[in-house]
Amino acid sequence: MLGFGTNDHPTMTDVPIGLDAKGTRKEFDSMGTVAVPADTYYGAQTARSLVHFSIGGDKMPMPVYHAYGVVKKACALVNRAEGRLAGWKADAIVRAADETIAGKLDAHYPLFVWQTGSGTQSNMNVNEVLSNRAIQLLGGTLGTQQPVGPNDDVNMGQSSNDTFPTAMHVATVGQIDAHLLPQLDALAKAIEVKATDWMGVVKTGRTHLEDATPLTVGQEWSGYAAQIRGAMAAVEASKAGLFELAVGGTAVGTGLNAPKGFSVAVARQIAELTGKPFVTAPNKFMAQGSLDAMVRASAALRGVAVALMKIANDMRWLASGPRCGLGELKLPANEPGSSIMPGKVNPTQCEAIVMISIQVLGEDAAVAFAGSQGNFELNAMRPIIINNVLHMIRILADGAEKFRTFSVEGTDLDRAKIASYVGNSLMLVTALSPVIGYQKAAHIAEKAEAEGTTLRDAALASGDVDAATFDRVCDPKGMVGEGTAGA
Amino acid sequence: MLGFGTNDHPTMTDVPIGLDAKGTRKEFDSMGTVAVPADTYYGAQTARSLVHFSIGGDKMPMPVYHAYGVVKKACALVNRAEGRLAGWKADAIVRAADETIAGKLDAHYPLFVWQTGSGTQSNMNVNEVLSNRAIQLLGGTLGTQQPVGPNDDVNMGQSSNDTFPTAMHVATVGQIDAHLLPQLDALAKAIEVKATDWMGVVKTGRTHLEDATPLTVGQEWSGYAAQIRGAMAAVEASKAGLFELAVGGTAVGTGLNAPKGFSVAVARQIAELTGKPFVTAPNKFMAQGSLDAMVRASAALRGVAVALMKIANDMRWLASGPRCGLGELKLPANEPGSSIMPGKVNPTQCEAIVMISIQVLGEDAAVAFAGSQGNFELNAMRPIIINNVLHMIRILADGAEKFRTFSVEGTDLDRAKIASYVGNSLMLVTALSPVIGYQKAAHIAEKAEAEGTTLRDAALASGDVDAATFDRVCDPKGMVGEGTAGA
Amino acid sequence: MLGFGTNDHPTMTDVPIGLDAKGTRKEFDSMGTVAVPADTYYGAQTARSLVHFSIGGDKMPMPVYHAYGVVKKACALVNRAEGRLAGWKADAIVRAADETIAGKLDAHYPLFVWQTGSGTQSNMNVNEVLSNRAIQLLGGTLGTQQPVGPNDDVNMGQSSNDTFPTAMHVATVGQIDAHLLPQLDALAKAIEVKATDWMGVVKTGRTHLEDATPLTVGQEWSGYAAQIRGAMAAVEASKAGLFELAVGGTAVGTGLNAPKGFSVAVARQIAELTGKPFVTAPNKFMAQGSLDAMVRASAALRGVAVALMKIANDMRWLASGPRCGLGELKLPANEPGSSIMPGKVNPTQCEAIVMISIQVLGEDAAVAFAGSQGNFELNAMRPIIINNVLHMIRILADGAEKFRTFSVEGTDLDRAKIASYVGNSLMLVTALSPVIGYQKAAHIAEKAEAEGTTLRDAALASGDVDAATFDRVCDPKGMVGEGTAGA
Amino acid sequence: MLGFGTNDHPTMTDVPIGLDAKGTRKEFDSMGTVAVPADTYYGAQTARSLVHFSIGGDKMPMPVYHAYGVVKKACALVNRAEGRLAGWKADAIVRAADETIAGKLDAHYPLFVWQTGSGTQSNMNVNEVLSNRAIQLLGGTLGTQQPVGPNDDVNMGQSSNDTFPTAMHVATVGQIDAHLLPQLDALAKAIEVKATDWMGVVKTGRTHLEDATPLTVGQEWSGYAAQIRGAMAAVEASKAGLFELAVGGTAVGTGLNAPKGFSVAVARQIAELTGKPFVTAPNKFMAQGSLDAMVRASAALRGVAVALMKIANDMRWLASGPRCGLGELKLPANEPGSSIMPGKVNPTQCEAIVMISIQVLGEDAAVAFAGSQGNFELNAMRPIIINNVLHMIRILADGAEKFRTFSVEGTDLDRAKIASYVGNSLMLVTALSPVIGYQKAAHIAEKAEAEGTTLRDAALASGDVDAATFDRVCDPKGMVGEGTAGA
Repeated sequence: MLGFGTNDHPTMTDVPIGLDAKGTRKEFDSMGTVAVPADTYYGAQTARSLVHFSIGGDKMPMPVYHAYGVVKKACALVNRAEGRLAGWKADAIVRAADETIAGKLDAHYPLFVWQTGSGTQSNMNVNEVLSNRAIQLLGGTLGTQQPVGPNDDVNMGQSSNDTFPTAMHVATVGQIDAHLLPQLDALAKAIEVKATDWMGVVKTGRTHLEDATPLTVGQEWSGYAAQIRGAMAAVEASKAGLFELAVGGTAVGTGLNAPKGFSVAVARQIAELTGKPFVTAPNKFMAQGSLDAMVRASAALRGVAVALMKIANDMRWLASGPRCGLGELKLPANEPGSSIMPGKVNPTQCEAIVMISIQVLGEDAAVAFAGSQGNFELNAMRPIIINNVLHMIRILADGAEKFRTFSVEGTDLDRAKIASYVGNSLMLVTALSPVIGYQKAAHIAEKAEAEGTTLRDAALASGDVDAATFDRVCDPKGMVGEGTAGA
Repeated sequence: MLGFGTNDHPTMTDVPIGLDAKGTRKEFDSMGTVAVPADTYYGAQTARSLVHFSIGGDKMPMPVYHAYGVVKKACALVNRAEGRLAGWKADAIVRAADETIAGKLDAHYPLFVWQTGSGTQSNMNVNEVLSNRAIQLLGGTLGTQQPVGPNDDVNMGQSSNDTFPTAMHVATVGQIDAHLLPQLDALAKAIEVKATDWMGVVKTGRTHLEDATPLTVGQEWSGYAAQIRGAMAAVEASKAGLFELAVGGTAVGTGLNAPKGFSVAVARQIAELTGKPFVTAPNKFMAQGSLDAMVRASAALRGVAVALMKIANDMRWLASGPRCGLGELKLPANEPGSSIMPGKVNPTQCEAIVMISIQVLGEDAAVAFAGSQGNFELNAMRPIIINNVLHMIRILADGAEKFRTFSVEGTDLDRAKIASYVGNSLMLVTALSPVIGYQKAAHIAEKAEAEGTTLRDAALASGDVDAATFDRVCDPKGMVGEGTAGA
Repeated sequence: MLGFGTNDHPTMTDVPIGLDAKGTRKEFDSMGTVAVPADTYYGAQTARSLVHFSIGGDKMPMPVYHAYGVVKKACALVNRAEGRLAGWKADAIVRAADETIAGKLDAHYPLFVWQTGSGTQSNMNVNEVLSNRAIQLLGGTLGTQQPVGPNDDVNMGQSSNDTFPTAMHVATVGQIDAHLLPQLDALAKAIEVKATDWMGVVKTGRTHLEDATPLTVGQEWSGYAAQIRGAMAAVEASKAGLFELAVGGTAVGTGLNAPKGFSVAVARQIAELTGKPFVTAPNKFMAQGSLDAMVRASAALRGVAVALMKIANDMRWLASGPRCGLGELKLPANEPGSSIMPGKVNPTQCEAIVMISIQVLGEDAAVAFAGSQGNFELNAMRPIIINNVLHMIRILADGAEKFRTFSVEGTDLDRAKIASYVGNSLMLVTALSPVIGYQKAAHIAEKAEAEGTTLRDAALASGDVDAATFDRVCDPKGMVGEGTAGA
Repeated sequence: MLGFGTNDHPTMTDVPIGLDAKGTRKEFDSMGTVAVPADTYYGAQTARSLVHFSIGGDKMPMPVYHAYGVVKKACALVNRAEGRLAGWKADAIVRAADETIAGKLDAHYPLFVWQTGSGTQSNMNVNEVLSNRAIQLLGGTLGTQQPVGPNDDVNMGQSSNDTFPTAMHVATVGQIDAHLLPQLDALAKAIEVKATDWMGVVKTGRTHLEDATPLTVGQEWSGYAAQIRGAMAAVEASKAGLFELAVGGTAVGTGLNAPKGFSVAVARQIAELTGKPFVTAPNKFMAQGSLDAMVRASAALRGVAVALMKIANDMRWLASGPRCGLGELKLPANEPGSSIMPGKVNPTQCEAIVMISIQVLGEDAAVAFAGSQGNFELNAMRPIIINNVLHMIRILADGAEKFRTFSVEGTDLDRAKIASYVGNSLMLVTALSPVIGYQKAAHIAEKAEAEGTTLRDAALASGDVDAATFDRVCDPKGMVGEGTAGA
């Protein structure tokens, strides 16, 4: 510990990231000493976790660590401001945290998802990496935990129990804002452009898959856009719960070992660092004993999937054909569709969206289940929840982008087909109902269908309506109303 | 049609509800004539549905019909105000609708859940009952559809496609407000009373099921209350989507056969009748082609289940014993617990809540799945969604009431047991960490555990801390902080 | 206890079921005395449960009690055979059990689903009813528990912990055999008849919803039947686990208070009474600590839903139209489809099946979740599991029956439409691929689509194939192979 | 095409895997030309897919490609045997397929999960890689599709529609056999060893979390092993459906473009190559239009999760403490448990298993949903299903291995604690029930609990039993029966 007492002031040097050493290095924790690869910053507990939890290929997602960088930085800044952490220590921790936030230390965060339910091992991974990187910056010896220790310094005033859910919230909000909402907005906009373009194109409506009264293609697409906008609003609203942070609750929510005011100060610092309105959670026992805000955010993501699935299904059905399907839409032909059927083109972007949507529903179900499994002062189902939520965000955002770029934007209409359907639909009879009554109108439609005639022929044959009335009342263009708000 | 032309003014008489006739009565629809029981008000389409869809024991829940009464009444009032429906007709329809709203005609709404996906058969059930009851009130002959017809009059300007989701929203909001939120509030209050009473009782915390640092029983229970309050807020928020009504979109969202302004006027009327801020949905194609608002409401209900499950699980674990469990809580002994083990008492209310919570998660999954299955201008998965959502509300509300009454309110503490745990917990060592460092503190705890000594003995033996410091720092009462917001 | 010592021999009289008394009767259990309605056979614990658990409208399904009658009868017979239970007692219990089995005492089993997780209250309900009915038959006084006590006599050698899962298994197998499998078989047969009838009708295939190479309608329907047959086989196989019975494990699986050999003897007796190969579970700790066999049965039911949903979806899509859809099938028109659109007919039976299938998936998810929540010697999630499983069976069986009767059997083909699709499909080009190579074939199809010509025209124009070859190779009838097993 | 007509016989040279070229290479498909990295074997369609479907980080799992190697090899062998494919072509394809099977070409299979629902792009990826690798082996020019073309040669007689589900089945069976079943067997064995070791250790039973009658630790663990064995049997049984292969159905199940007998021959060849009893599916329309066998296999995997979750939960609860929990078990201390609480050890392996189990339930729900979404001749939800199923297998197998190695095998008993519970449990009173009746026994237990005395004191004080009888009857060792089958 020569030269590294808390009264010393080691100087930080601008050592680039990286460790030249080969072989292994000794690291220790309370259980003893562990050999770790010499070229990594992580320490004993990360190494232990790699041995005990190499399960599947699922790694804790990087946004968790980037968010953890923010949390550690904020804590160091507050600890320094309150005089608990020497400035030079704090500076080194902040520097390492910034490198983590920037993704420059990603390679040193190798842990698996299926680990301790509190996320302690990932917290210790961060503590160890920041500690060792700070030691390196300060000219110390890696593995000594001096002059910057993973527990006593980097984790000062903190527990995994309060910082991991804090990082979960910061990561989730970050990914929603950076990826999901922009992609959904772009998709909604692309659909809105189509809705505007096609607002005057009259088409047959379909309910129960069966012919119904007409509407316009633009009206139909306005509904798609409205669904996405509604789902976006719910995602946006779900952030309110995520803005409440557990940090400051420490081990069980009481704030033991953190100074008074720590929770408020750290939340404020995180808000400043991220530019987002994070605040301290009013009840830390809920914030650590439950993951209810994450479950609600997951539900909002599910809402996106539910909307996208309907839209993608509509598009692939309306584009079905080319000769034996509905054929109203023409989707871009991005790739050959079949290894055996030459010239086949399939609605593959729609299929990807449908699968993504189903996956999101399955993962959301896992999140809700896990959310219900807290016990006492901890919900120890954190890794499964953050992994699923971030995955849902990612595949929804990426999927929305591909769907827009390679399917929605290039979609065209087969106007002739659309027009021929409108002309043939027997459900134009609906407009006659207020004139001649529902029952007579029904008999006209039934007769036309049974005899294979046009609706007009059947209507005139019925004697219930004359030609002029029929032509005036049963005009599809007059049946679509105005705009999107109905009558 | 003798005497029942629209220019006639039949007089409504105060005929009490009920039909004396025996045997069957002829009713007709566009497909022909059907015999229905003479003592029922329903007509041909209801009778057809009873034949075709007698599946399981699941009946469309009554709140749907009560809500439909509101919708039909509102439409009749608006149609009258606009001069489309004669006043005497409207009056009779309104009277029958009021009887429906009051539950007096429940016996005449016998349809099953598993029917047409649009809910048309339930809409027609309402149309038929209101038509026949109005005919009775006006002195007409049942089965003639004169002078008040189910389609042309009761359903005037409406479709199942817009009114059924409207009734779904009205019913759901109604049940949430009348039953769920009050019961959750009562439960939260009962828990808050306990939290206040027990705010000073120090207990051992538990994370990962393992001993952790202390908190108070009141703090723990404040977390339960906060979870319920959070879940309630989400349910409350989910009503925003439900306040938007589809009525006025008619068949496919365009508003065909409804006069301009109908949607706004009917929504305003429904708002007035219910005292709730219903408005017309801005996009009718979304309102009829999707059930996204219902899916989001379902997600909010799921959030209640997630919270309740955690609380009920905590309570039954903390009450486990009486001799071989945790034994911190004493739940009311409501009934003998075992048919074979004499004197056994079980946490049965907690188990019911856990099962209810799981059921809610399963039903919510069905709702989300169904919500994704809309096609074109209709999501034809309405009956499954409304049935599940209303069932979720009902079992959550009833369950919360029983849980509060028969378990929460009567729960007591075993203070001696709680105190003995606190004294024994090795995790009091945490408070030493800032004083002597994490590693030394860890070795003390590990030694105490390995040797079965008290923490104090191990601490003093370590030489890292003196008795005075230990007693000052490791005082459980000093470790629980203040209030519920952490440090 | 006058006259009712175990050495007395009261005589059973043929008293008909029913209690004339009015008001209430005193019943007792170990916690004290409770007033119950005088016209019911149930006792104190049932009454307590009705107070504490009136949650929702969900009642424990009757098949559970009917199965419990079998279990109680079998135990009484074995107890008598082993000399533990006097013959006259056993006779009276058996008589009451037979009445339960026959459904004659249904009104006396009023308990709710959401009760104690072990099902103890329903077991005690049975014990109380059989006890009181036996007392009545033997001329005793109801409420005295003499000469036949609910715990000591009816429940002799039993616990809820072993008998309730036994009743679950017996009830589930019974409902599967009596309702589900026969209805699925009838449905499969109806489909097989169609498959045979239509084996020669060539139609266009569709993959990804897009036109593909031809097959016959009969081949397509043979796939539906094969799916149902496969699902049935899985249901049948899942019974193997259900045949293993927990009875004889008593309180925790050790068989305490039951004589050696009891489990084997009772299982044999149940097998004899039911005519089904029930045996004793080889491991009672699994049989009572888990409900794994029920979870597996539930999964098999889910498999039925997955198959039915595909079939119902295919049918409604193929029947879509009548003028603007695929229109290959004509489903029976069972009822008017719309309250606003006259003459509309919808695929309502298919929609009901789709909703039932989704419901089954949701309920199965609840079953699996509940199945994972056992603790130690008991999975206390029994009521939720048996209620869902029996409900799934019921709606699947009833749904299959209605679907067959009102949709499948009456389905017809629109042969002209089918033929016109086949002639137009560009995917007949696939047959050219082995002759001229995939790439050239693709270019022909792409050209025909781009230019709106027939495939034949495009093929001949390409110069890659002559007319004779084209006509020989691209003959749809020659492209459908033989039978259902592919090449 | 110089030198590469089908009548030429190019010679295969032993070119090592690898392409030295830099930059890009031109590849073509029916839609035109695409530049691909020059150092990869894949072609135009793989390149297109990489552009259109880079969604999330989810790649199609390698076992799919390894299994596809088997399928392609089998097809090539059968095509050669039937004289459709020249021997030298077949040899080259087989060589490349063998390299794929061995994992040597993994780097050339880069596609994402979220792609076309048929898996066509992955099939084409295989076709392209085998084609180009064969071309390389035969001295041809990559990108020319000569002398071995991806569609006409490698894909001869095949479609994605039949080969992709075939590869799914082969991959799933392979992973189950190679990883899951061996790991589950090892886990069951480890538990069985414990069960045997601890068969004589009497402990208190717990039902509803409450004290119950005694059993032995070994009996309890025998139940765990039985659950795993039961789940394994279900997984084993689910393979029956997977053994049925779709190959030979080609595009829509009719076998178009495949010669008669192809399906039987290829299935036989696959059986030979894998040593597993694969056969051809009797109904190809089901085999391609549904994924029911996969859904059933997924359900079996879910059964494993349900069992493991119960076991892991039991273990972590029984190990809870060390001072304030149940404390019957001592789990290995693998790592420090807390970043803030020194000396804390947590049941992290159990938590990982619980999370894995929940994840499996969520993914299985996605599989079932996807399984229901087939349309007509194709279920286009294949990638989501195979990805989830293989993931479930992997995390279950890996999780079981870690759980066994780092938790089960090192678990010890705290025999003193176990014994003290047994002595204190009031539920020993159950054994008195047959002697003095249930009600009297209940009052003894209730009195002991209320007054905090021992059961013996309360029993003797009641006067209902003498000391000798009590000591004889209420001996825990006499209450655990023998073995695991109950009475």
